[in-house]
Amino acid sequence: MIYSHQIESCFDDAVGAHGLSRDAFLALVAETAPAVQRLRDWYAESSLPLLRLPESRDDLRDLEKVAADCRRRFDDVVILGTGGSSLGGLSLYALAGDTSPRLHFLENVDPHSFAALTARLAAGRTGIIVISKSGGTAETLTQLLCCMAWLKQTAGDSALADQIVAMAEPGGSPLRKLAARYGFRVLDHDPKVGGRFAVLSLVGMLPALIAGLDAAAVRDGAAAVLSEVLAGDDPASCPPVAGAALAVGLARERGAVMSVMFPYVDRLAPFALWYRQLWAESLGKDGLGTTPLRAMGTVDQHSQLQLYLDGPADKMFTVIMGPSAGTGPLIDPELVDDPALAPLLGRQMGDLLDACQRATAETLAARGRPVRVMALEAVDERTLGALMMHFMLETIIAAHLLGVDPFDQPAVEEGKVLARRYMQEMGGSGP
Amino acid sequence: MIYSHQIESCFDDAVGAHGLSRDAFLALVAETAPAVQRLRDWYAESSLPLLRLPESRDDLRDLEKVAADCRRRFDDVVILGTGGSSLGGLSLYALAGDTSPRLHFLENVDPHSFAALTARLAAGRTGIIVISKSGGTAETLTQLLCCMAWLKQTAGDSALADQIVAMAEPGGSPLRKLAARYGFRVLDHDPKVGGRFAVLSLVGMLPALIAGLDAAAVRDGAAAVLSEVLAGDDPASCPPVAGAALAVGLARERGAVMSVMFPYVDRLAPFALWYRQLWAESLGKDGLGTTPLRAMGTVDQHSQLQLYLDGPADKMFTVIMGPSAGTGPLIDPELVDDPALAPLLGRQMGDLLDACQRATAETLAARGRPVRVMALEAVDERTLGALMMHFMLETIIAAHLLGVDPFDQPAVEEGKVLARRYMQEMGGSGP
Repeated sequence: MIYSHQIESCFDDAVGAHGLSRDAFLALVAETAPAVQRLRDWYAESSLPLLRLPESRDDLRDLEKVAADCRRRFDDVVILGTGGSSLGGLSLYALAGDTSPRLHFLENVDPHSFAALTARLAAGRTGIIVISKSGGTAETLTQLLCCMAWLKQTAGDSALADQIVAMAEPGGSPLRKLAARYGFRVLDHDPKVGGRFAVLSLVGMLPALIAGLDAAAVRDGAAAVLSEVLAGDDPASCPPVAGAALAVGLARERGAVMSVMFPYVDRLAPFALWYRQLWAESLGKDGLGTTPLRAMGTVDQHSQLQLYLDGPADKMFTVIMGPSAGTGPLIDPELVDDPALAPLLGRQMGDLLDACQRATAETLAARGRPVRVMALEAVDERTLGALMMHFMLETIIAAHLLGVDPFDQPAVEEGKVLARRYMQEMGGSGP
Repeated sequence: MIYSHQIESCFDDAVGAHGLSRDAFLALVAETAPAVQRLRDWYAESSLPLLRLPESRDDLRDLEKVAADCRRRFDDVVILGTGGSSLGGLSLYALAGDTSPRLHFLENVDPHSFAALTARLAAGRTGIIVISKSGGTAETLTQLLCCMAWLKQTAGDSALADQIVAMAEPGGSPLRKLAARYGFRVLDHDPKVGGRFAVLSLVGMLPALIAGLDAAAVRDGAAAVLSEVLAGDDPASCPPVAGAALAVGLARERGAVMSVMFPYVDRLAPFALWYRQLWAESLGKDGLGTTPLRAMGTVDQHSQLQLYLDGPADKMFTVIMGPSAGTGPLIDPELVDDPALAPLLGRQMGDLLDACQRATAETLAARGRPVRVMALEAVDERTLGALMMHFMLETIIAAHLLGVDPFDQPAVEEGKVLARRYMQEMGGSGP
C-alpha cells in the first residue's frame, strides 16, 4: 500500500453533525459507477491519454536524452510557464534537493523577480524550457521574449537555437512560430492532455528527469492507483472514489465549501498548490465546486488552526502524513535539565512532527470537523505519482457527481480578453 | 497617499446581488464607533503597546547594534520561530533582495528541511535568532535544541553563547532557562504585544535591520495609517474602518465566507501569509470569522480564477496592485513579426503585469464578485508598514463588529496538549 486512506473521521457517527451519514456516502458512491465505467471505456479506447501515460515508457527514453543534454550543458535551467505548465514540475522538483543544474520555475511576470533571477544566472550556461500548451499564453510568451533578449545580449544569437526548448501542442501558435524563426526545438504537448492533468506527460517528466528523479517511478505510483480504480472492486473502499463521494457529500449536505489540503512534509508544499489548481479549475464552474486551500504542518497550527477548530464548520480536511517518526536529529537530553521539556528529550525532531500531525487530525475530529488522513509509506517519486493520480481521478469522479466538465475552464478567457485590450490601449512605443 | 483603497466594486449598486448595500455598509460603519473610540483610549493610555510602536525610535537604535553585530560576524542568520514569530519578519525580508547575511526562516520541524538547511551553512559564521513569545513553543524549542547540538559539534561550545540571540517575554520559561544556562542573550518580547500583532516590535524589526532595511520607514508607514484612524474623521472613507465594515457585512449579508488576499507583486507573497494568520487567528472563534486565502497574480489567474469567476459567489477579494506599468525589460518588437503578439510588442514586462491586475479586478466585478483594490504608490518599507497597520486595525475593528476578542487564540491549546501527550507516550530513549 503506497498510502493509506483513512476516512472514518468524515462520518457523522464519528464526528457528529458536520460529518456525512453513511447512507448519503453510499448513495454517492453508487452514483460514481457511470464515471468509473467511463474511465474504463476511455482507458480501453485510449481516448483520454492521461490514463495511458502511467504505463508509457518509450517517451521517457527520448526525454532522458533532452534531460541529459541539459545536465551536461547547463548550471541552471529556467522553466517558463504558469498554472498547469509549472505546478506539476515544481511539485516533483521539490523531491530533488540540491540538483545540477538547478531548476527555476518562473511563473509570474513580475519585473523585480525577473531581474533578481537573471542577475544570478550565467547566460551561457542557462537553459530555457518554455511550456505553453496553447503556445499563446501571454505571460509565458512575455517571459520568453524577455529571456530571448537577455540571452541574445549576454550569450549571443546562437544561444536562442541552442539553449531553448519549447513544449506546445501542434499548430501555428505564436510559440511555434518563434521556434521556427529562431531554430529552437519544440516538443509536442498532447492536445488531449489538459494543463492541470499534464504532470505525467513531458510537462512534468522533463523537469523531473533533468533533476535526476526517477520519472518511471512517478508513473509506477500513478499506475497502481489507476489500476485499482479501473478494477472497480468495492468502490466504497477505493480511495479516489470514496474521496470524491465524501468531498461532494460534505459540501452538498454539510456545507463544507472548502477543502483544506494539509501536508506535514515541507516537500509536499508545491504538491498542495498543484492540487489547488486541479480542484479549483476542474470543478469551479456553473456556481458549483468547493474552494481548495493549502495549509502546511506544523506552521499553520500557529496560524490557521484556531479558525479551523473554533471558526465556522465549513471545511473538509485532508491531512497528509509523512513517515517522520524516528527520523531527524536527536533532541539531546544532555543539553537540558528542565522538566518542562521532558517530553521532547531523547526524541528526534521527526517524532515531534509525527506527534503534531496526529494531534492535529485528532483535534479536528474531536471538534467535530470532518478530516481524512492520507499516510504515505515514503515521500518519493512513487508516492507522489500515486497521490497525484489519486487526486486527478478523485477530481474527475467528483466532476461527474457535480455534473460539470472537469476538463474545461471557460471563465478564464474573460480576464485574458480584458488584459489584451488593456495592453492594446496602453500608450508607449508599441505598434 | 501611501495606498488607495477602492471599494466601489464591493457594493450592490456596482456588482449586483453579491455586493453589500450602501445602507448596510453605513450601519456597520456606525457600529465601529465604539471600537475606534477604544483604540483612541488605548492609545492615550498607552495600554495597547502596538499603537505606540509606530512612533517609537529609541528601541530601534538598540536593535541596530545587535543587527550590526550580526552583519559583521555572520554570513547566514537562521530565524527560529513559527506563526507570529516568523511571518512578520519574513514579510519584511521579502523587500530586501540579496542580503549579507542571508536570512533563513525555519518555521517547521521537518527533519528533511532542517538537514538541507544546515548542510548549506558554515556553523562558525551562522547566527541563530530564536523567537517564542511564551518561551515554550515546542516546535521552536526543538529547532533550537537541534541547532544547539549542531553548533556545539561544528563550531564548539562557545558558539552557543556567542551566536544565539533569543526573544521571549520575561518569566521563567524554558527558553529563558536555556539562555541563562548557556549564556546567550535574551531580548524582551513585550507580553502585551501578541505574536500576530508583533511585526512592528523587535520580532519584525530585528530581522529587517539585519537585512539592511529601513525599519523606521516601516513604522512611519504604520503611523500614517494609525493616525488617520485615530483622527476619526469621516469613518466611511477611512480605509481600515471601511474594510472592516465591508468584510463583516459581506460575510453576514452576502455569504462571503472567504477573504481572498490577491497581490500582484511577488514580494508581497509572505505578507499575504502574514495577513492570513492575522485574520484567521483573530476572528476565527465562537463559530465566527471568515477564512482568509492567499492568491498570487498572475499565476493564480491560471489556477484559481476559473473558480473565483464561475464557482460559488462566497468570497470577498482584495487585489493589491503594485506600480508596475512602465517597469521591467522591454518586449523587443525586433524579435517578433507575429501579428498575434502585437499587443505585447514595445511594451515592458510590467505593463503586462499591470494590465493583468486591472483585468482581474474588473473581470471579478463584471461577474458580480465583490472586489476592493488597494493600489500601492511603491513597494517598500513605508508602504508595507502602512499595509500591515491597515490590516491590524481592520482586524481589530472587525473583531468588535463580530463581538470576539481579537487578541486570544483559545482553541490552539487543544492541539498542543494532545501533541505533548503523544510525545510522552512514544517509545524510544526519552525519559
